[in-house]
Amino acid sequence: MTSTSASSSAPPSHRGDALQRAQTLATRFAETAIARDAAGGTPKAERDALRQSGLLSLSIPADYGGQGAQWIQTLETVRILAQADSSVAHVYGFHHLLLATVQLFSKPEQWVPWVEQTARNHWFWGNALNPLDERTVVRRMRDTQEWFEFSGKKSFCSGALDSEMLIASGKDERSGKLLIAAIPTARAGITINSDWNCFGQRQTDSGSALFERVRVDAAEMLLDPGPLTTPRASLRPLLAQLVFVHMFLGLAQGALAEAKHYTLHEARPWFRSGVANASDDPYTLAHYGEFHVALESMRLLARQAATLFDEAWQQGDSLDADGRGRVAVAVATAKVAASRHGLDVASRLFETTGARATHGALRLDRYWRNLRVQTLHDPVDYKLQDIGNWALNAQAPAPSFYS
Amino acid sequence: MTSTSASSSAPPSHRGDALQRAQTLATRFAETAIARDAAGGTPKAERDALRQSGLLSLSIPADYGGQGAQWIQTLETVRILAQADSSVAHVYGFHHLLLATVQLFSKPEQWVPWVEQTARNHWFWGNALNPLDERTVVRRMRDTQEWFEFSGKKSFCSGALDSEMLIASGKDERSGKLLIAAIPTARAGITINSDWNCFGQRQTDSGSALFERVRVDAAEMLLDPGPLTTPRASLRPLLAQLVFVHMFLGLAQGALAEAKHYTLHEARPWFRSGVANASDDPYTLAHYGEFHVALESMRLLARQAATLFDEAWQQGDSLDADGRGRVAVAVATAKVAASRHGLDVASRLFETTGARATHGALRLDRYWRNLRVQTLHDPVDYKLQDIGNWALNAQAPAPSFYS
Amino acid sequence: MTSTSASSSAPPSHRGDALQRAQTLATRFAETAIARDAAGGTPKAERDALRQSGLLSLSIPADYGGQGAQWIQTLETVRILAQADSSVAHVYGFHHLLLATVQLFSKPEQWVPWVEQTARNHWFWGNALNPLDERTVVRRMRDTQEWFEFSGKKSFCSGALDSEMLIASGKDERSGKLLIAAIPTARAGITINSDWNCFGQRQTDSGSALFERVRVDAAEMLLDPGPLTTPRASLRPLLAQLVFVHMFLGLAQGALAEAKHYTLHEARPWFRSGVANASDDPYTLAHYGEFHVALESMRLLARQAATLFDEAWQQGDSLDADGRGRVAVAVATAKVAASRHGLDVASRLFETTGARATHGALRLDRYWRNLRVQTLHDPVDYKLQDIGNWALNAQAPAPSFYS
Amino acid sequence: MTSTSASSSAPPSHRGDALQRAQTLATRFAETAIARDAAGGTPKAERDALRQSGLLSLSIPADYGGQGAQWIQTLETVRILAQADSSVAHVYGFHHLLLATVQLFSKPEQWVPWVEQTARNHWFWGNALNPLDERTVVRRMRDTQEWFEFSGKKSFCSGALDSEMLIASGKDERSGKLLIAAIPTARAGITINSDWNCFGQRQTDSGSALFERVRVDAAEMLLDPGPLTTPRASLRPLLAQLVFVHMFLGLAQGALAEAKHYTLHEARPWFRSGVANASDDPYTLAHYGEFHVALESMRLLARQAATLFDEAWQQGDSLDADGRGRVAVAVATAKVAASRHGLDVASRLFETTGARATHGALRLDRYWRNLRVQTLHDPVDYKLQDIGNWALNAQAPAPSFYS
Repeated sequence: MTSTSASSSAPPSHRGDALQRAQTLATRFAETAIARDAAGGTPKAERDALRQSGLLSLSIPADYGGQGAQWIQTLETVRILAQADSSVAHVYGFHHLLLATVQLFSKPEQWVPWVEQTARNHWFWGNALNPLDERTVVRRMRDTQEWFEFSGKKSFCSGALDSEMLIASGKDERSGKLLIAAIPTARAGITINSDWNCFGQRQTDSGSALFERVRVDAAEMLLDPGPLTTPRASLRPLLAQLVFVHMFLGLAQGALAEAKHYTLHEARPWFRSGVANASDDPYTLAHYGEFHVALESMRLLARQAATLFDEAWQQGDSLDADGRGRVAVAVATAKVAASRHGLDVASRLFETTGARATHGALRLDRYWRNLRVQTLHDPVDYKLQDIGNWALNAQAPAPSFYS
Repeated sequence: MTSTSASSSAPPSHRGDALQRAQTLATRFAETAIARDAAGGTPKAERDALRQSGLLSLSIPADYGGQGAQWIQTLETVRILAQADSSVAHVYGFHHLLLATVQLFSKPEQWVPWVEQTARNHWFWGNALNPLDERTVVRRMRDTQEWFEFSGKKSFCSGALDSEMLIASGKDERSGKLLIAAIPTARAGITINSDWNCFGQRQTDSGSALFERVRVDAAEMLLDPGPLTTPRASLRPLLAQLVFVHMFLGLAQGALAEAKHYTLHEARPWFRSGVANASDDPYTLAHYGEFHVALESMRLLARQAATLFDEAWQQGDSLDADGRGRVAVAVATAKVAASRHGLDVASRLFETTGARATHGALRLDRYWRNLRVQTLHDPVDYKLQDIGNWALNAQAPAPSFYS
Repeated sequence: MTSTSASSSAPPSHRGDALQRAQTLATRFAETAIARDAAGGTPKAERDALRQSGLLSLSIPADYGGQGAQWIQTLETVRILAQADSSVAHVYGFHHLLLATVQLFSKPEQWVPWVEQTARNHWFWGNALNPLDERTVVRRMRDTQEWFEFSGKKSFCSGALDSEMLIASGKDERSGKLLIAAIPTARAGITINSDWNCFGQRQTDSGSALFERVRVDAAEMLLDPGPLTTPRASLRPLLAQLVFVHMFLGLAQGALAEAKHYTLHEARPWFRSGVANASDDPYTLAHYGEFHVALESMRLLARQAATLFDEAWQQGDSLDADGRGRVAVAVATAKVAASRHGLDVASRLFETTGARATHGALRLDRYWRNLRVQTLHDPVDYKLQDIGNWALNAQAPAPSFYS
Repeated sequence: MTSTSASSSAPPSHRGDALQRAQTLATRFAETAIARDAAGGTPKAERDALRQSGLLSLSIPADYGGQGAQWIQTLETVRILAQADSSVAHVYGFHHLLLATVQLFSKPEQWVPWVEQTARNHWFWGNALNPLDERTVVRRMRDTQEWFEFSGKKSFCSGALDSEMLIASGKDERSGKLLIAAIPTARAGITINSDWNCFGQRQTDSGSALFERVRVDAAEMLLDPGPLTTPRASLRPLLAQLVFVHMFLGLAQGALAEAKHYTLHEARPWFRSGVANASDDPYTLAHYGEFHVALESMRLLARQAATLFDEAWQQGDSLDADGRGRVAVAVATAKVAASRHGLDVASRLFETTGARATHGALRLDRYWRNLRVQTLHDPVDYKLQDIGNWALNAQAPAPSFYS
């Protein structure tokens, strides 16, 4: 794996600096997060700020012009952004996921130019890969050479709007197999609709795309080794899940930070409590105690999963199914804990602030809304089933785009 | 108690019919509930529909032109309305609470004309009673006779906008005691602001009011027996809590009804589930099993509390502190269960519908938002403390405006 | 249904008196419950006390020499006994269940003499019906008349030791069908082993039985209508479940009563609590608040299920599948709540007593042990599935010996 | 701090070997754990095996004849032993805690000989320190030199029986201050009673001790710096809590291992499940999934707390209150999670095994019993309060013998 050596040769100070840059952006994004949650739509200014920050090349190996960060560092920037704005954190995390996707699913001669151009030109990658939506059909064509024609609709295309490159999937007309390509978003025949409207993650632009006889060259197809074909190629969905884990952790931390501020500076002690400050109420303290236990659990499970992921990534093609399975279980475990604890904290925090914190201007409900929407990406129930099958039957999760 | 005989002499068919009328209105309100949740503001058309329905006199004793319903029946109409629209259910429930307030806190020669006029003219009563907001001051005045001057601000005045009558509270300038009056909303010096903006219960108009040297006659003051002075007068906060309990129950039932419809007609089985329909997924069935257990617990606790409340109401002045305490504990028990189960169902229901049910057009998050806002009226923690003090130490909750 | 009129003609004072007699026995049994939990074995003295109390004929229609109690009353005596001794409550509850079994599964000319003799002679019925244990085989024989031969082993035969009559099941050698008979325990070929040894419910004698070519007359076979053949015959498992529900409720109430006594009279306030008495600790109060909410939920769900069961019982053969389904769901709902809340209270109560309450002499762990063992009779998970299938798909639980 | 260099100079292979030795002992102890749980009393053979294993000097710095293990390693051996036998793990963990106690509370000229003799002679240290039991009074005496006389009773003296050395506490007759001494268990006037009888941790010998005018030399008093006087001296209770955390983790892992074995090899699929093996039941898998998430959370929180403890230990006298506070919060967080998850797993595991796993011969209830008893050492509620006070108010826990 080229990326390993690249990674380790990157200047650590540069990488530490990435967290600082992410924090600076988070602080800036926080100023408008409430208004943008209300408005929905594309966070164009924030996307451009990310382009200018250099963070879009954070995970790209240094040999190819990137900053060679390990995944745990890149995920840390996702978490930091999510404390302020989980929509931007989502499309930013997916950008890096899509860069990993080409590295995992295609040949170096394909992906090296893509990541080099990304680093050089601050490209933003968007998602049009949705294995459960089978409406896009791929037809194999041939004139002077083989090419592929993508036609059909697709939903949940997070971050496709305002992107330079797309990862798109379709169903092979003949074999029914999932085929994946990396193509310029501006390619003729592609329409990305601005039709995302959910009650959470409102600026992820996770709307629909339309492919009308889009021509895709063979060199743009991610066929070697292709999706989920090897243990290494099967790392892709685990990185997707880790992006979510770090978003949920950041969301929970952001929610708790706002709750703390309110409890300390705005909340009134209940008239029956016998304490002078809301922050001394015994039940309020117990709630914060429980929040802390939950967040620490989330944090350590996330860190462990990201660490194992980096180790597996560095193993490259020598990673075997069992090794991939261990990472998958660690990731699933972190995902379950992050989903449940995150939702619980985002809902219960109000019991430490009182009714006035529900004022519309604060939009403190957005943490629950963002978590509720994004934790539905794939069911917690089946994550638990996978984990249980490992714990009880020593069976690793079957690789899929969700496990 | 006059109300007892009045109650029992009312034609049962008329009362049964009330549930039917409430259901008809709920069905109608449901058509616009999503749009009105988005818009906020005053549900003027719905308030007028309630006026025309006759339901505003449901709890008024038949002797005074009302329909003599027992409280359990009136609360049942609150629950039915809350299934479709918990904002309207709130102001409707509070209207009846305020009618009870004058019956409990003032002399018959005061309240009989008020309730008779309410029945005759379809008056809507609004709330400007907030014992924790001490900014409104009452000065005792005297010219030819004693009168009172109310001055100051007040928050959380649910349903005050578009009301004919107000229950207003203030702090006696001299004694610091809470004083309460029933006054026409149109009285000179009263301004009701349209400034309610919370993320839930968005059409309750629970905004602020301003009293500028408002003149209140002695005959409008609820001084005999006054608030919380006797076990019977202390029933008032229990009725307020019961209105909430029935709102939460209705909200949970409404949420579950929508979730069921979605699971049955829209949701797709998870690709790993091995079942043809989402409604056969073993985990989905288990979720619905838990929802049902929660809702049945809520329902039975609410019914028991309402039944005990009606018995206490009928005891009138012979109700003693111990009897009032038993009702208070039953009400608090129902409140805790309704708050917790309601929030849990409203958040977890999405795990049976999948991500697409978070579409903004459905606004399915409003159940959680409405529950989250209204369950913060007073802390569940202190309800549990009260209940525990009863269960362990046999001490009844000290009557307050919240217990 | 003869039982209906019998029931309603029984003297109410006699039935109210049953609760008093059960309470007297419970108080007496409580004196030795700790020692007997340690010893295990057959509670012979307690069984004889039940015989002498007349409570063994409580559920028998008055026309046949019994006391004609409704099931809700009989179950109430189970609950009362379980507060002190859930093993005795179990075999006592099952005695009545077995009396119901012959009424539901056989013809009046069969069951009337059995219940009359039971009332007259204070017979105790024991259980040797276990549909999941298929080791007992039934061979149809014929000499001058048809008879049946039972051979094989059977586990979980609660209360079979020291019983006068047995309900025994076996698998028809030819058809594989479950066959059930009512036979004297003293019948030649029957051996009841004293081999029950579980960590809870230690005096239920739920050990094994051996049938060695036991002759059973055709008139002893419960074939008309037989088990689970009609909605009415399918009420039997619901009564079994209700016995458990009332045991769990009694256990939880007994556990809480002991915890309360300890907290009030023995526990010391934590040195950090700032209160003079353990019973004023804010967290202790909150725990008792939660215990009370849980117990009230259990109590109301149990009462509702028992009430619906009595109504279905009184409907007799006119009960239809849907009506039976409604009772089944109410029973399952009460069972789930009773299982979960019971276990939770029995485990968490120690957080209100402190470490010294774990002293071996108190055996306060027996509530958890008894609940843990008995709540495993059939899985809560599948009860939730049944309830969910009703709530979501409007499908009633398929009648089985467990639902 | 001498211990730091000692620690780091110890041969790693030796330390890794400690885990192997602990595992060997655990395997041996498991063979009799069930019988000894039933019998209670002193685990004499197991204590002697620990003496012979050399593990009693594991935490002793290499410079003084020990194996110089870091605390995280010593705690790991506690965890390993607790998987098989949490009573032995308790007295073993406390032995090391008491060795730390003399290092933290007394001068090197005092503690060095003690730990050297311990390493040389395989001494076992026992506990007679109980700050909440004030019945032992210390009188300051003087003849040729100052000495101290300990008189009175003491409860919860874990591991005092069959020990060579005791850490004993008493209340200064004059000042009321807590005084602590290290004395030979065989000292005249000391009686250790074999009167421990709780329903869990049955072989910890946590019974009472009697001090009858026991003479304690000044050189045996731990007065410089004395208990909880400095941040470093205040590490002692944190180590006590870490011993518990690792016991709870070991208990939960041991419980789960037994449950898994039973589910895989003994449990039967529920007749309604539609699966051939109990281990494929969807609900059983979900339970194991939840168990795994809980155990991983416990494990990572324990590891983090132990790591931070080792760092603080190595800081020695330069540790400040804030640094000690951070460790205290990490330890409390791990303790809360370990207590709650441990109890939950130990109770719920039966839902994956079915009723037959409650057979008395398996004594599978002992995990819950052991956890229930030991988790009551100090209240979880006040741990949460401490954690909350840190999370919300940035206040570190006030050092006490419990925080």
